[in-house]
Amino acid sequence: MQAIAVLQGNELIYMEIQNIIERIHDEVKPLSAYGKVADYIPALKNVNPDQLGICVQTLDDKTFGVGQCETPFSIQSISKVFGLTLAYKALGGEIWQRLGKEPSGTAFNSLVQLEYEKGIPRNPFINAGALVISDIILSRYKFARRELLEFVRDVSGDARVDYNEDVARSEREHGYRNAALAYLMKSYGNIHNPVEDVLDFYFLQCSLEMKTTSLAKAFLYLANHGVVPFSGKQILTPSQAKRLNSLMITCGLYNEAGDFAYRVGLPGKSGVGGGIVAIIPKKLSICVWSPALNAFGNSLAGIEALERFTTYTKVSVF
Amino acid sequence: MQAIAVLQGNELIYMEIQNIIERIHDEVKPLSAYGKVADYIPALKNVNPDQLGICVQTLDDKTFGVGQCETPFSIQSISKVFGLTLAYKALGGEIWQRLGKEPSGTAFNSLVQLEYEKGIPRNPFINAGALVISDIILSRYKFARRELLEFVRDVSGDARVDYNEDVARSEREHGYRNAALAYLMKSYGNIHNPVEDVLDFYFLQCSLEMKTTSLAKAFLYLANHGVVPFSGKQILTPSQAKRLNSLMITCGLYNEAGDFAYRVGLPGKSGVGGGIVAIIPKKLSICVWSPALNAFGNSLAGIEALERFTTYTKVSVF
Amino acid sequence: MQAIAVLQGNELIYMEIQNIIERIHDEVKPLSAYGKVADYIPALKNVNPDQLGICVQTLDDKTFGVGQCETPFSIQSISKVFGLTLAYKALGGEIWQRLGKEPSGTAFNSLVQLEYEKGIPRNPFINAGALVISDIILSRYKFARRELLEFVRDVSGDARVDYNEDVARSEREHGYRNAALAYLMKSYGNIHNPVEDVLDFYFLQCSLEMKTTSLAKAFLYLANHGVVPFSGKQILTPSQAKRLNSLMITCGLYNEAGDFAYRVGLPGKSGVGGGIVAIIPKKLSICVWSPALNAFGNSLAGIEALERFTTYTKVSVF
Amino acid sequence: MQAIAVLQGNELIYMEIQNIIERIHDEVKPLSAYGKVADYIPALKNVNPDQLGICVQTLDDKTFGVGQCETPFSIQSISKVFGLTLAYKALGGEIWQRLGKEPSGTAFNSLVQLEYEKGIPRNPFINAGALVISDIILSRYKFARRELLEFVRDVSGDARVDYNEDVARSEREHGYRNAALAYLMKSYGNIHNPVEDVLDFYFLQCSLEMKTTSLAKAFLYLANHGVVPFSGKQILTPSQAKRLNSLMITCGLYNEAGDFAYRVGLPGKSGVGGGIVAIIPKKLSICVWSPALNAFGNSLAGIEALERFTTYTKVSVF
Repeated sequence: MQAIAVLQGNELIYMEIQNIIERIHDEVKPLSAYGKVADYIPALKNVNPDQLGICVQTLDDKTFGVGQCETPFSIQSISKVFGLTLAYKALGGEIWQRLGKEPSGTAFNSLVQLEYEKGIPRNPFINAGALVISDIILSRYKFARRELLEFVRDVSGDARVDYNEDVARSEREHGYRNAALAYLMKSYGNIHNPVEDVLDFYFLQCSLEMKTTSLAKAFLYLANHGVVPFSGKQILTPSQAKRLNSLMITCGLYNEAGDFAYRVGLPGKSGVGGGIVAIIPKKLSICVWSPALNAFGNSLAGIEALERFTTYTKVSVF
Repeated sequence: MQAIAVLQGNELIYMEIQNIIERIHDEVKPLSAYGKVADYIPALKNVNPDQLGICVQTLDDKTFGVGQCETPFSIQSISKVFGLTLAYKALGGEIWQRLGKEPSGTAFNSLVQLEYEKGIPRNPFINAGALVISDIILSRYKFARRELLEFVRDVSGDARVDYNEDVARSEREHGYRNAALAYLMKSYGNIHNPVEDVLDFYFLQCSLEMKTTSLAKAFLYLANHGVVPFSGKQILTPSQAKRLNSLMITCGLYNEAGDFAYRVGLPGKSGVGGGIVAIIPKKLSICVWSPALNAFGNSLAGIEALERFTTYTKVSVF
Repeated sequence: MQAIAVLQGNELIYMEIQNIIERIHDEVKPLSAYGKVADYIPALKNVNPDQLGICVQTLDDKTFGVGQCETPFSIQSISKVFGLTLAYKALGGEIWQRLGKEPSGTAFNSLVQLEYEKGIPRNPFINAGALVISDIILSRYKFARRELLEFVRDVSGDARVDYNEDVARSEREHGYRNAALAYLMKSYGNIHNPVEDVLDFYFLQCSLEMKTTSLAKAFLYLANHGVVPFSGKQILTPSQAKRLNSLMITCGLYNEAGDFAYRVGLPGKSGVGGGIVAIIPKKLSICVWSPALNAFGNSLAGIEALERFTTYTKVSVF
Repeated sequence: MQAIAVLQGNELIYMEIQNIIERIHDEVKPLSAYGKVADYIPALKNVNPDQLGICVQTLDDKTFGVGQCETPFSIQSISKVFGLTLAYKALGGEIWQRLGKEPSGTAFNSLVQLEYEKGIPRNPFINAGALVISDIILSRYKFARRELLEFVRDVSGDARVDYNEDVARSEREHGYRNAALAYLMKSYGNIHNPVEDVLDFYFLQCSLEMKTTSLAKAFLYLANHGVVPFSGKQILTPSQAKRLNSLMITCGLYNEAGDFAYRVGLPGKSGVGGGIVAIIPKKLSICVWSPALNAFGNSLAGIEALERFTTYTKVSVF
């Protein structure tokens, strides 16, 4: 059984990760009954809410899992971290000419702020920002669709990761609000490719399906100064990795980012499919999946599980 | 000469703090010519912009200073951290019934959001939130004025810290916008004491004058799980201290919070007097003061100094 | 019994005003059971909602009344027309340097727009605009309080019209939102007198008590090119009178202005005390009072009565 | 030479319309040098700004014209009045379930308010409202395209009125912001037909080309209780016509509606092609065209011409 060194006061103590996540699994599982799965497309609506998977992946290549940790699910907005990484690799700091780095305030502002700030989205994790990122990827990667998939397979070490084209099509058909955002930015000149192409790519990216074990693994480069630990491949520079973590801690959980920072205190990213991934720099990544959501669109049991993980292990960035 | 252990790649290297801050001082000092001192009250307007002080204070009681590190200045909004600490001590998590924990989006929203969200300020570091905190302190501390001062003297170890009543009066006379915020919240029932009393206390708190050495020392309990290292006094619980740090990293630098997290990556708080304090958990606190401000109202040389400090020492929370 | 010439198709027909308003009284009286009296101050809250008075006043000095047409009530925002008239007389078109002439959009915007538009209120009939008008009056009339009262007594021909100081005091004590508006405008330099003085005068003006017969009479100068018909006194130029009517038709009924124009089609002004006055240019003025309000803060039975009056008489400005 | 009866004080005086509009033409023509033609599509950008046409059309079938009164121009948003008439004829008051009757406040709010009010546009004359009207027409008229054209030919008595398909196509290609509005409303369920179809029809409607004489004639039914005077055809009921006039006076000139009501005091509608039509109920309609626009997108010389027309004739609805 694996253990992690954690700090209490000034002493190091060892606690067993597998025990901890099993305990957490049992404690927070009942919460899934109080949330609500995303219902705006059939593919998400029909997911059984009574599921919970947790996986912890350490930098030294140990994997700990419990519950439905091997069940693939729709990663949705978590994919924005992969998209941002690709765009950041290609363009570096130049991407900040087309989008901001600041938290977005309330949901009610989505179009408001975009209009007020003349088509420059607040940050890469709100939908408008992710659409700009998709636009950048389309301009910079000739085979964007294939290259994104290969990248995700590569960092996750899982060759079976794939898009779910049915989900992508279904979201595309209901994605009127995202179309509105994209057309508004196009009117300000901040979308360079045809809007329809950008929407296609964006929804395809969101449709990626992964299991918690692959997803936790895929985030390790962010906990490891930009290097994939099991392959040694440098994805981002240390400074870029640090910056991406900063963005996750300030903007990663929609309008719950501040509350998540307050309760959990780790850089993380959530998706409406019920997944959340967080990292503890230089130590590990953790992925929780439970499809029942809270009012902010984040996994109800997932956030609770992460809060308990930081409480029980006393690990924190602060 | 003192040194700090910092991580580069996977190796520990030792660098000399005093050398580092002296180098930074020389490099960023010229920037003060490009900023602009706050000019809305005479007391701030007349400060010589060509000043820069830096102080690093370690948990093991070492102090490193350079430039005008011993010159008292108006700490302004940095005082909101002290106010929040007092309110948090008195009320615990209950304070979140009266204000939020989320970043506030743009400045232009200050009254907008407050109206939209029915008098509940976004977080304790925007003016509206700090006014609610002042209101809580007035309700909970019989001798609020004296008790706040004693608290700051206590955590800073500096018995000469004091209010500047002239500054307080001057700000009070020009503080029409803060009066508007307070009356709006009063109309929603979120200010319990008379508005005039709340404004008096708020401006008095902002008028505190401190030098970088005292201010850096005063923030050590946030880097040390809530305990003042030199006195052993427990100010906050470890969990409360972690949470206050989370708030600083997401909301501490006004509308530049995201950019500051991106560039510096540390919990910090700035004031319009030109001071910024940041902490590196379990290690140290650093205070920079330079009165010339950037367009967001934060010290121009101060932010640059802090970014260089994290770059040169490679210390980061991520 | 008096009659009014009204146009149907291309023919003139005569209908009897007294009969019409009695019929309307009986038809709309039951509506008062479905509204809600203003409850933010005791003085308004305690008014019996089951009251309805209607008065029509013609340019040739005929008065028609029904119901509680002789009961004094709190005219509240209707007084903004008198305030605007005084300021307009004193400053002419110059007043538009300090406030706009455009409808204000939604109530939710009250502070939003004021902030976005840097302290310039949308029009003189929203509270912010009326506060600026009060400020102008205080600057231009040495004995503002007395001069306003004399003016209203003069145009209404009713020497018993008076302020209700208890109502003024009570509103003043609960007027936090108006204080917020005034301080916000002060912060932009658009209030010249001390905020407290402006608020005092504003609430005093709102506390005027009049009966429908006096109020209908007092509006005749607006239906008569600026001249009080019974005294021959020129209050405004014809062009000014026309312009004040334009403002009433576009902005006179808060957020219900468009709907009122659509249903009633006359320049008018309402107050939260349940009064509404409207004019038919070159013909008459009509005042309705019924204290039960609809969701927009306008008299429920009052609006219905006015719509029926234009329907039955077929009088309209269009 | 024709004359119009106008009121001065209580006396009727006769003035000659042709003389008046010729005088106005000469006086305001120089203003066209100070405006700016719409430049967002080539077809509008290439129009010679130095043109001014005025046409007055009386209910008793007299036509008075001056300048470029017979030059066809792009009527743009003036066409919204025709669209609204068709939708209103088909659905009656039911249309108000899908859009409001209130002025929209500032332009900056266009998307803001639409989002805040959940996809219900403020009124039928802002773009969002006109898109909903287009959607209604598509649902209610089988041959919408042809039926709209026939309607306009019919009320204008000009069989040569036509769409300009090049202009429609060009606007369609640049119409990203309108696409954003339409998709946002679609996301709220307030667009029933495919967004692309609605946009096609909307831009086609805007591309109508007419000369001032035809356009003035086409508005006569609004000055005549809903009946086309020269054909006797009842287009709207008197009550509907009155209501459409109310909407024009409160919402017809974008964000300048209040100022236009203040200065001109007539129901009117403007277009970005430089045309403005206004009506004097029971008397006449007047169309002015001059392509150079002011900052609000309304014809600079056009508004001035209309203000002078009401000043010189002393005609007003108030």
